[in-house]
Amino acid sequence: MFCIGIGVGTHSAQGHWLDVAYPQSVLNPDAKLIDEINSIVDLQADAGAVTLDSDTLSQLANAVSDEAQQSLLNDLVTSQSPCVLTWLRKDSAITSTPEAYLKLHLLSSGQSLPNSLNLDGIFAALPNVAWTSEGPIAIEALDQALLKARVAGRHLDVTSIDKFPKLTNYLAPHGVRIADSARVRLGAYLGPGTTVMHEGFVNFNAGAEGPNMVEGRISQGVFVRKGSDLGGSASTAGTLSGGGNEVITIGEDCLISANAGTGISLGHRCTIEAGLYITPGTRVTVMDTEGTPVKTVKARLLNGQDDLLFIRHSQTGEVQCRTNQNAIKLNDMLHTHN
Amino acid sequence: MFCIGIGVGTHSAQGHWLDVAYPQSVLNPDAKLIDEINSIVDLQADAGAVTLDSDTLSQLANAVSDEAQQSLLNDLVTSQSPCVLTWLRKDSAITSTPEAYLKLHLLSSGQSLPNSLNLDGIFAALPNVAWTSEGPIAIEALDQALLKARVAGRHLDVTSIDKFPKLTNYLAPHGVRIADSARVRLGAYLGPGTTVMHEGFVNFNAGAEGPNMVEGRISQGVFVRKGSDLGGSASTAGTLSGGGNEVITIGEDCLISANAGTGISLGHRCTIEAGLYITPGTRVTVMDTEGTPVKTVKARLLNGQDDLLFIRHSQTGEVQCRTNQNAIKLNDMLHTHN
Amino acid sequence: MFCIGIGVGTHSAQGHWLDVAYPQSVLNPDAKLIDEINSIVDLQADAGAVTLDSDTLSQLANAVSDEAQQSLLNDLVTSQSPCVLTWLRKDSAITSTPEAYLKLHLLSSGQSLPNSLNLDGIFAALPNVAWTSEGPIAIEALDQALLKARVAGRHLDVTSIDKFPKLTNYLAPHGVRIADSARVRLGAYLGPGTTVMHEGFVNFNAGAEGPNMVEGRISQGVFVRKGSDLGGSASTAGTLSGGGNEVITIGEDCLISANAGTGISLGHRCTIEAGLYITPGTRVTVMDTEGTPVKTVKARLLNGQDDLLFIRHSQTGEVQCRTNQNAIKLNDMLHTHN
Repeated sequence: MFCIGIGVGTHSAQGHWLDVAYPQSVLNPDAKLIDEINSIVDLQADAGAVTLDSDTLSQLANAVSDEAQQSLLNDLVTSQSPCVLTWLRKDSAITSTPEAYLKLHLLSSGQSLPNSLNLDGIFAALPNVAWTSEGPIAIEALDQALLKARVAGRHLDVTSIDKFPKLTNYLAPHGVRIADSARVRLGAYLGPGTTVMHEGFVNFNAGAEGPNMVEGRISQGVFVRKGSDLGGSASTAGTLSGGGNEVITIGEDCLISANAGTGISLGHRCTIEAGLYITPGTRVTVMDTEGTPVKTVKARLLNGQDDLLFIRHSQTGEVQCRTNQNAIKLNDMLHTHN
Repeated sequence: MFCIGIGVGTHSAQGHWLDVAYPQSVLNPDAKLIDEINSIVDLQADAGAVTLDSDTLSQLANAVSDEAQQSLLNDLVTSQSPCVLTWLRKDSAITSTPEAYLKLHLLSSGQSLPNSLNLDGIFAALPNVAWTSEGPIAIEALDQALLKARVAGRHLDVTSIDKFPKLTNYLAPHGVRIADSARVRLGAYLGPGTTVMHEGFVNFNAGAEGPNMVEGRISQGVFVRKGSDLGGSASTAGTLSGGGNEVITIGEDCLISANAGTGISLGHRCTIEAGLYITPGTRVTVMDTEGTPVKTVKARLLNGQDDLLFIRHSQTGEVQCRTNQNAIKLNDMLHTHN
Repeated sequence: MFCIGIGVGTHSAQGHWLDVAYPQSVLNPDAKLIDEINSIVDLQADAGAVTLDSDTLSQLANAVSDEAQQSLLNDLVTSQSPCVLTWLRKDSAITSTPEAYLKLHLLSSGQSLPNSLNLDGIFAALPNVAWTSEGPIAIEALDQALLKARVAGRHLDVTSIDKFPKLTNYLAPHGVRIADSARVRLGAYLGPGTTVMHEGFVNFNAGAEGPNMVEGRISQGVFVRKGSDLGGSASTAGTLSGGGNEVITIGEDCLISANAGTGISLGHRCTIEAGLYITPGTRVTVMDTEGTPVKTVKARLLNGQDDLLFIRHSQTGEVQCRTNQNAIKLNDMLHTHN
């Protein structure tokens, strides 16, 4: 079994899932848990999302021995919101809303790293939802809900119209600060010690290993290793729109300074100075430890290398890459690739 | 008749309008609707905003034959919030809060394009309002409201203190995603297929034709044509503060990359590379299709031209404009203007 | 007495303060107020935060003659939320949550300028809190609160997980607009006439004298004098992460254009063109009023000087500083410092 989750969510008036919260999702559940659940709900299908009524929830609570799952099931027995049991035997393409939410929870609960899950089909599986102060509302019902609230003298606040909700309404990541929760989607991976400041942003299937200070944007697919900081408005090129096909990684102890950006991966201990954007096609003059120019290459050839400092020379406008320690290794690499 | 709207809004304790929602505003209403309404409420004045009591709402519901308006009126008969009928015979300067909100709705409902309405007087007509989880509150009442909520053990969340509210609490634009609704003001025009991501921003009297991916800022007066994308933190210079007097348009199929910006209009199929800001005074070396420098001109001379690619050369710091296809046309233009 | 405040806040289940609002904090209270309060609550300790029950609140309301304090006390007598009296005899390091909140209120109420208070210990004194639609919730209780709300069919919105709350839920600064309140922390100083647009950000112990248009980021410790504007995504380097040790000030009538930034202080009437980031180490060619290059210096030597215009030459990539008026003074300065 690849994963399983007991969830509680929201239905549209038509009975379609708008969202599902899985407080205790499990990656690679052990055989015992599967057997116990299977004694109540048939898990033979490759994947499934079965709505759970109060009786079934009670039976599951009696059958399951895992403490956290049992506690969750007991809490859900009296739920006013619809409940679901979702499972996937393999990490195959996503075919339903509950499956999509389950995989997003695997990421945000820290069980799965970005780019480790098969997320094919996720956009089709996620409905566009109006996220409001009264919970998720189906898009087609929004006009009437707004009017109804006005007429009743109630204030309905629509905070987002999107396929992805914000992480913080589903899970409370451990040891993390998120200054403005509107900027972190469910499906973001935030390791312990990560602070996402007001200008920070983390997409789904993207994240920071922690500890990290995130004042810039971590695009879909991008993973930032521990000790690295993104300054205000720092940009990491994604693969969804405008960006290329390469998935970017930022190594440990890097600094992408304020208003800077990168379209290539960085290794460890790299710095991009404030305001400089490195694209794969940027021609970069590489200097050795003595500050002597060694070669001019496109930045994509420096992809993933350690100990690089990128600046734009303020007198000549030349983009330079100064190597801190590993000049020889770097030069070797350059010769290999050229 | 220029426009008419039946609205429902909020009064301050002094009976001043704080906001008005118009679920079914009408640009250029037909004579029949006007006559029907005029049989109940005198519409002879050039402009007006008449508060509607329950009786008048009932009479209007009986008089009006348009289905959408009738349905709205029937919903409003029992309204706990004050209702209003607002009309403007001509597109003249704004003189009241209900008029201001009506014009903002014409834009956000997609009936009026940015820069097509007379918005003179809008700042004076819009009160500065505290937008809260309990609805709009007059600024002068905010201190007491915060204290009162605390004493009652209630949480009052003040999400904004501004003249303009957010669009999503008034209308549900069709086929649109708005990841963080705090970033799109009422009065923004968002055509079908527009996605405004978390870092996107759209001011009033500004917008995107759709489909568009908006991860940057669309300033007041700026209109982005279909197929064009704004990368994260991409900037379009506005005319309200810091910007010039020229209203900027972005043509079709353009890309203003992440952390880039423009102070000139772009034609179709233009690209500005990541991190480069083109101001009207930027001296740009124009290259023909062969890559040969043709001329150096200030960017304002390239205003609105098609098929331009703007980069800053990463070895020389020179800002260059490479033409994709229309080199000859471009050169002609340059000669004409110089 | 350095300061005193009567507050109302939130307790965790363990009885720890999660936040405190002080509607009428007082810097340097007069002897009369102190004596009156001291007649009910013993203020001899160097600092204190005494929880106030209904009886003590009544007694204080009778004892105090200051109208604003008396009115506040009378309102609090029936409070459902816990109340506190906090005082500091000296501006010493912060040792409790109520003290931290009192100092943040001194800043945001406009009584204390940024960098004028001893804020040592503030991070340790402020608990990390989940800020929700139902008020502050202790981090360790969040998982259960989310589940409980789901089960009850209630929507719990978690807007932030942070040590600092947003200003607007505590105070209503006079003559100020804050388009997106999630971007202004309690402890921000916003003088009359300040507008913080959607892309603006103001940290605690930072602010704008007013009037100012803030579409960029005012980092911790940074103070912007009247008449200066920060364009969209404009950056001021802070001292908390990534930045240096120098606290930055922006003088009067400056413009840091969109996507620009500074790591040095600016004097009066300075401009940084759109997209240019000046760091202390940026080599800058200084030109006199005739446009003749005078000298090349690191930007830190221009720290705090008046009448400077910073651009990156669009043909050569050279960062230049053009002086508007005070070339001679500037040259003297340069000679002195070199």
